[in-house]
Order: sequence, then structure tokens, then C-alpha cells
Amino acid sequence: MTAFDELMAFQRETEALAQIAGRLGWDQETMMPRGAADQRGEEMSAIEGVLHARRTDPRVAEWLATAEPQDDEDRAQLRQIRRAHQRATKIPAELAQKLARVTSTAQGIWAEARAADRVEDFLPTLAEVIALKREEAAALAAGGNLYDALMDDYEPGATAETIGAMFDRMRPRLVRLRAAVLEAAPPPKLDHHFGENAQLRFARDLAATFGYDFTRGRLDLAVHPFSSGSGNDVRITTRVVEKDPFNCFYSTIHEVGHACYELGIDQDYLLTPLGNGVSMGVHESQSRIYENQLGRSPAFTGWMFRQMLDRFGDFGVAGPEDFARIVNRVQPGFIRTEADEVHYNLHVMMRFDLERALIRGDLQVRDLEAAWNDRFLADFGVAVDRPSNGMLQDVHWSCGLFGYFPTYTLGNVYAGCLHHTLREAITDLDDHLSRGDLAPATGWLREHVQRHGGLYLPRDTITRACGFTPSEGPLLDYLDAKFGALYGL
Amino acid sequence: MTAFDELMAFQRETEALAQIAGRLGWDQETMMPRGAADQRGEEMSAIEGVLHARRTDPRVAEWLATAEPQDDEDRAQLRQIRRAHQRATKIPAELAQKLARVTSTAQGIWAEARAADRVEDFLPTLAEVIALKREEAAALAAGGNLYDALMDDYEPGATAETIGAMFDRMRPRLVRLRAAVLEAAPPPKLDHHFGENAQLRFARDLAATFGYDFTRGRLDLAVHPFSSGSGNDVRITTRVVEKDPFNCFYSTIHEVGHACYELGIDQDYLLTPLGNGVSMGVHESQSRIYENQLGRSPAFTGWMFRQMLDRFGDFGVAGPEDFARIVNRVQPGFIRTEADEVHYNLHVMMRFDLERALIRGDLQVRDLEAAWNDRFLADFGVAVDRPSNGMLQDVHWSCGLFGYFPTYTLGNVYAGCLHHTLREAITDLDDHLSRGDLAPATGWLREHVQRHGGLYLPRDTITRACGFTPSEGPLLDYLDAKFGALYGL
Repeated sequence: MTAFDELMAFQRETEALAQIAGRLGWDQETMMPRGAADQRGEEMSAIEGVLHARRTDPRVAEWLATAEPQDDEDRAQLRQIRRAHQRATKIPAELAQKLARVTSTAQGIWAEARAADRVEDFLPTLAEVIALKREEAAALAAGGNLYDALMDDYEPGATAETIGAMFDRMRPRLVRLRAAVLEAAPPPKLDHHFGENAQLRFARDLAATFGYDFTRGRLDLAVHPFSSGSGNDVRITTRVVEKDPFNCFYSTIHEVGHACYELGIDQDYLLTPLGNGVSMGVHESQSRIYENQLGRSPAFTGWMFRQMLDRFGDFGVAGPEDFARIVNRVQPGFIRTEADEVHYNLHVMMRFDLERALIRGDLQVRDLEAAWNDRFLADFGVAVDRPSNGMLQDVHWSCGLFGYFPTYTLGNVYAGCLHHTLREAITDLDDHLSRGDLAPATGWLREHVQRHGGLYLPRDTITRACGFTPSEGPLLDYLDAKFGALYGL
Repeated sequence: MTAFDELMAFQRETEALAQIAGRLGWDQETMMPRGAADQRGEEMSAIEGVLHARRTDPRVAEWLATAEPQDDEDRAQLRQIRRAHQRATKIPAELAQKLARVTSTAQGIWAEARAADRVEDFLPTLAEVIALKREEAAALAAGGNLYDALMDDYEPGATAETIGAMFDRMRPRLVRLRAAVLEAAPPPKLDHHFGENAQLRFARDLAATFGYDFTRGRLDLAVHPFSSGSGNDVRITTRVVEKDPFNCFYSTIHEVGHACYELGIDQDYLLTPLGNGVSMGVHESQSRIYENQLGRSPAFTGWMFRQMLDRFGDFGVAGPEDFARIVNRVQPGFIRTEADEVHYNLHVMMRFDLERALIRGDLQVRDLEAAWNDRFLADFGVAVDRPSNGMLQDVHWSCGLFGYFPTYTLGNVYAGCLHHTLREAITDLDDHLSRGDLAPATGWLREHVQRHGGLYLPRDTITRACGFTPSEGPLLDYLDAKFGALYGL
């Protein structure tokens, strides 16, 4: 065996073990009996220990030094392995263990603080997490920008400077669109009870409609919807709110986008470093284009309206125009995960600015709540009424996920670019969507984005698919056009 | 840290990883999408590789050489670790891998051969499995008895000579009882449709009645019922046959017995070598006493009859006496897993004799079918009509599980002994059972058997609980008395 082959064989086992760790996470959120939580903590710690030992194994450095790639795919495999190995070896083992322990505890403390709406209960832990993440960032950055070093884990190659400049360009147009929409007449209210089983049946059918392969996945209930796994075992979850069926339906379509990305990767890359979605931003581009540009397009919601009439009977909506407006309702709200397309990125931008200041050390945790509430009032025109609607709403910081939030908006920007190109490539897209036929769109995305997995760098993946350098323009143009039409602006 | 502490910390991670491997197995039988099968094979292989490396880690031998136990529990921990380490290091890595690969393939070939009723399709693979198991046994036995070396994996300390002698003593009395019962008037037939959901609801309630802790477990459907996991995450499965609700109910109670054993082990032993059931025989003693001596006792079936009337309405059984006879129906049948208490051990004994001959080399696979069918005719008085009702019915041999079958009957023998002592300890047991109150019985079993986990050797575990050396007498006396009464012999 050549050094390259030995390395790849080793890596294949590592990828398989990483899949196991991921599936334990799925089990924990869907199936695990609650009394098993402590034991599960030890199980997760044991498998993470195995993974860490493999990622920092000195043989990997030796193999990397002598492996001879034969083609671009080999080179991309080595790039991914080198990247993971370097990140893992730069972080001292003691710090990694401490981070794992502290963030594990912090999640529980955060959940209780949120439930009790007590910011002060969370702040000491949050300060500890931030101190450790700064330490981690310093180890990774080697003198460079701390926040960039953290963000690089989720979006290789992205920098806070570029992202920040783009966000600054986006924000005024979003604030302007938001103000205009909120002055227009709102869509009618939905007031109907949608049974849980019927919602779940339609969610399953929607997943299949969007191309989710149930022979390589499954759909279960969870408190927070997510997608989990790579290769040929990619599972999704959804949730049901009986008064708001769109929560279930669009959560499902969103997770189907994530899952189809993983399931659509070239089978040659199975259990290799190229066999995973390349970044959080590209991942989110898939979930968002499935959910929004396709799933919330008036062409598709026309089909969906008829489906829902068949399944739920008359639910009090007069016609497909009203239905499209309801599905695309724009309204101010405190919660990011419930935000519409117009508000969503404003939620992300404030988190991006706040967490950069936290990591830089310019903002202290004791001042975080005030900073959050001031910014929210400025951008959303509403005062935060309680911490669970404010800075305690997201789990991310308790998990140590600093640098993750901007990838959500980056995903939206990428989705805007892909949607622009998709519309040029498939000129009769709306005809297909209005018949509930997603195959041309999802086929195009699989061919131009999904199948490549980790072959190209994130930004290159989008550039190759679109034929132009991604920017915020197409997303903003799309939002202006769509909501202009829906709200008669 | 002392060598003992280092060893135990290492072992704790190994136990946690073993739990993960077990949970993957559970997932495979209950949740896994079928398209994930190949990938799952690689995942299982990767985690088994990690476990094997840990079990044969040279540091374990060093720690074992210098560890200083402080008490009997420490000594028992070391005994269990030494045992696993010695077994693992005696088997050459290449042989272990080959066995894993061949048995994995063999299960698929067996399943297809059974479905097609074609013995000849399975024989070449079976011969290969047997050759490898003989090789494994030779490595383990170091000149000793091959079959004992294999059986020792499931029932430490048991020998084929002792078991064989006991089986020889049991067989005439079982054959005699069987003949007498079959001459008596049979119980009435059950002819009613029992809905799947109602069956599953009652199965859940039965599990709770027998003390299964749903906060540390769950009940799902699977093709073959099983129990899986140790510590605080022990899951069970059942199945539903709409015309035969007792399949579901008694499968459930049986698996609850296995699960309560694991869940009942002292929490101090969590994720240590003592934190698992000590042997297959002791495990089966718990599942069997729950299922048969308790669950099929006329006192308990009286309560169950009233429950079923409440839940299913009149299902055509006149009264509790007929119900008890139906639940305890004795009838000849080809299939071990469907056998009643009188026939079950006869099924086991013939497999024990046949597999010993296969491992000794006295029986060739080409002669196995004839040997099976001759023996079946002699013991059951019926000619096997097709291989799926004969030598192709069990999965065990395709998995390489030689030496496993006798533990089923050993479990029945142990259950007989425990039941004898339990009746002496709780003189009003039937009063409790007739009210559906299992707590005194299951509490006694937890206190005297389950909580000890791996602390004592299997046979010692039963001896300490019973206060006498276990033998077949109490089981045979119990069967004679119970079926004598039910069938008016």
C-alpha cells in the first residue's frame, strides 16, 4: 500500500466512527430514554476521545508528508485531511477536554436560565465558555484574527472582514424592505386546527416531493428540527404545532435540503473526507433554496394550497393568492428561528456583531443583554420583553459555537445566487413548481452543487455552480421582487 | 493514579464504546433505513476494530500485572478484565477479522437459504464458519476441549461434560411428561382478532407491571424480539401477530426479564466490567422466570384474563381455567422459538448434541440435515417437512454462535431453582400474582440475583441466591406439577 492508500484506509475508519458519533446525537434527540442522559455523556466522551486520538495521530502527519496524490480528487482529499489534522493538533488536549466539559454543562445551565428567564444564571458560564473559546482561537490563529480562526471551522476561507462588509451592504436594503412591507396590508390570519397525524403525513409526502430518499433516511419528531448523518444514512426530524402547520411543513423542507445535499454527494466519496457537505454556508444554501426560493415560491404554494384543501378540507383561506401571502407573512418577531425571509438576516447580523465584540474582548458578558436589546430595538423597532425572547433564545453560545451564525446569512446569499442561475437554466421552472414537480430544480442542484461534496472550497463550489462570484445582489433583488409583488409595493 | 485506577478508567471508556456498538445493533434492527446497510457494516467494523484494539492493548496486561485490588469487588473487576483480555489476545487478529467477515456474509446466505428452503445453498458457508470456529476454539483451548472453549464465552465455567450429563438426566422425564400431556384433552382454540395497537398498549402495561423502567428504556417493534444495552439505557423490542396476542405479550415479558437484569445491576458498577449480566445462562434465568414461572403461572394469568376482557372484550374464552390452559398450551412444533415449556428444552438438547459433534469433527455438514431430522423424529415423533422447519430455522450457527444453545436450557434450570427458593421466601406469592402485583417477586430477584451483575461467577450467583447447588430437579418438579394440574394428569 502507498502512503496515500494507507492514509485513506485510516481515514475511512475515522469517517465511519464520526458517523457513529453523529448517529448517537440523533438518537439522543429522538429516541433516547431521558434516564440515559448521564451514561450517554460518557459514551459521547469516549467516542469523541477515539476521534480526537485519530485526528491527531502522528501517523497522519507522516502519511500527509509522503502521500502522492494522482489527481484533483486525491489532492482535495489530502487538503481536507490536512485541515482537520492541523486544527486538531493545534488545540492542546487539555483545552479540548475542558471545552467539551464546560460546553456540555453550559447547555444545561443555559436551558434552565432560558426557562426561568434569568440572564444572571447564565453569565458566569458564558464568560467561561468565551474565555476558553478565545484560548482556542489564539491556539488556532497563531497571531491572526481570533474570530476568523473560529469561523474557519464552519466556513473555511471566510473572513469576518469580507462578511462584515457584505452585511453592511445588505442591512440598509433589508431595513428598507422591512419598513415598506410592514406599512402594507398584512395577509389574512390562519385560524384552523390541523391534526398532528395529517400534518406528519403531508410532511412525509413533501419530503418525497423534494426528492428525499426514504430508503436512505427517515423522518422523526424532535423538539428542534435537524438533519443528521452523511453518506447513505441521513435522517431528518420535524415538529408539529397544531395551529401552525407551516412550522412542520417548512421545517421538513428545510431539513430535506440539508439531507439531500449529503445524500446527493458522489457515492465514490462515501466515508471519505470529501463525502460531507463542504461548509455550513453551502449547507444552508441548500436548505434555504429548498425551503424559500422553491418551497415558498408562489408557483409551488399554488400546488401546496390544492394539496392542503384535499387533505384538510376548507381551512379558511380564500384562494392561492392569499395562501402565498400567508406562507410568506412578514412580521416582526423576537425569535430568529421563527423569522421570515425579510427579517431573518437582520437577526443574524446582530449576533455576528455581538459575538465578534465578545471574542475581541470589546464587549463583556455583563453588558451583553443591554447591547442585544439596544440593537434589537434599532433594527426591529420593538423592545425585547424578556431574555428568553432576547439574548437567551439561541443554544449556540452555550455550545461554544462562535462564528457559526454568519453562515446562516451566507447560506441565504448563496441560495440567492444559485436561484438566479437556476432560473436561467430552467426557464419553465414555475410550470414545474406549480405541478409540484421539483425534479428539475433538485436535479440541477444535485448536479451543480451537491454531488461535489468537499471537492471544491465552499466559495468555489458556489462560483462554479453559478458561473459568477457570489454576492448579496441576487438575494436582495429576489427579496425585493418577491415581497414587492406579494405586498403590492 | 494507581495501576488499578488507570486500568479502571481505561476500561470505563471501553465499556462506553461497547454500549455504543450495542446501540448501533439496536438501531439496525429497529430504525435504520435499509439503504444504509452497507455503510452500517463499515461503521460496525470500525467500532469493533476500536474495541478489539482496546481489549488487546498491551497496557492492559501491564496494569493487570501490577494492579492491587482492595476488596472482593476489585478482585471481581480484575477477573472480568483479565478474562476478556486473555480471550481477545489468544485469537490472532487475522482470524478474528476473517470470522467477522465470514459470519457477516453467512447470515445473509443463511437468510436466503432459509427463505428458499435450500440446505445446499447454506452448507459451504456453514462448513467455512465451522472450520474457523474450530480454529478459534483451538487457539482458546490450548489443548483443552474445543467446545468448552467456545461455550466459555457465553457461560464462563460451564463444561460440555457436566451440561451433557444434566441434559441426559432431564431428557427422559421431559419425554415422559410430553407424552402424557399430549394424550390428555387439549385446551380450546383461540379464534379472535386482536388489534395491533391494543396489543402494543397492553404489552407496554405488562412491561411496566413487571417493573421495566421506561425512563431508562423503550419498547419498539422488531422482526425478532430482543433486549439490548446495559446500565441506564436498556431497550427492548417485541412483535405483533394479530391472531396470537400471546406472542407479543410473552415476548415482551421475556425481554423485560433480560432488561430488568441489566437495569437492576448495582449503579456502582455502571460502565465497569461488573455492570453487565454475568452470563447467558443467568440472563436466560431472568427472562424465563419472568415469562414462565411468573408470567404463565395460573395465579398471574387469572389477572391477565380479566385485563384482556377489559381491553379486547369477549374473545371467546370461557373462564380463567381455560385461559391458563391456552396460555400454557403444549403442542409439538418444529420451531424452537415457538415451543412451550415442555418441548423447549428438547429442542435445545438436540442442537447441543449436533453442534458438539460438528465442532468435534464427528459430524460433517453434508450429514447434518439427516442427523437433525432423525433426532427430531425420535424426540418429537414428527418428521421435519422442510429445512426452514428444521436445521435452517435458527440464525445462531451462521453467526458462529456455537456453544450458545445450551445456555437456554441452563437458564431454564436456573429459573427452576430460583423459583423454588422464591416460593419459599414469599409464601403468599400467588396472592400477589393474582392481583397483577409482581413487585415482591421482581424485588426478590433484583436483590438476590440482578444487582450483583458480574460480581460472582455464573453458577455461584445462582447458588448464593438459592442457598443450594443448582440442579435440574426443581425445574422438572415444577413442570410435572404445573402441567399435571393443567392437563389433569
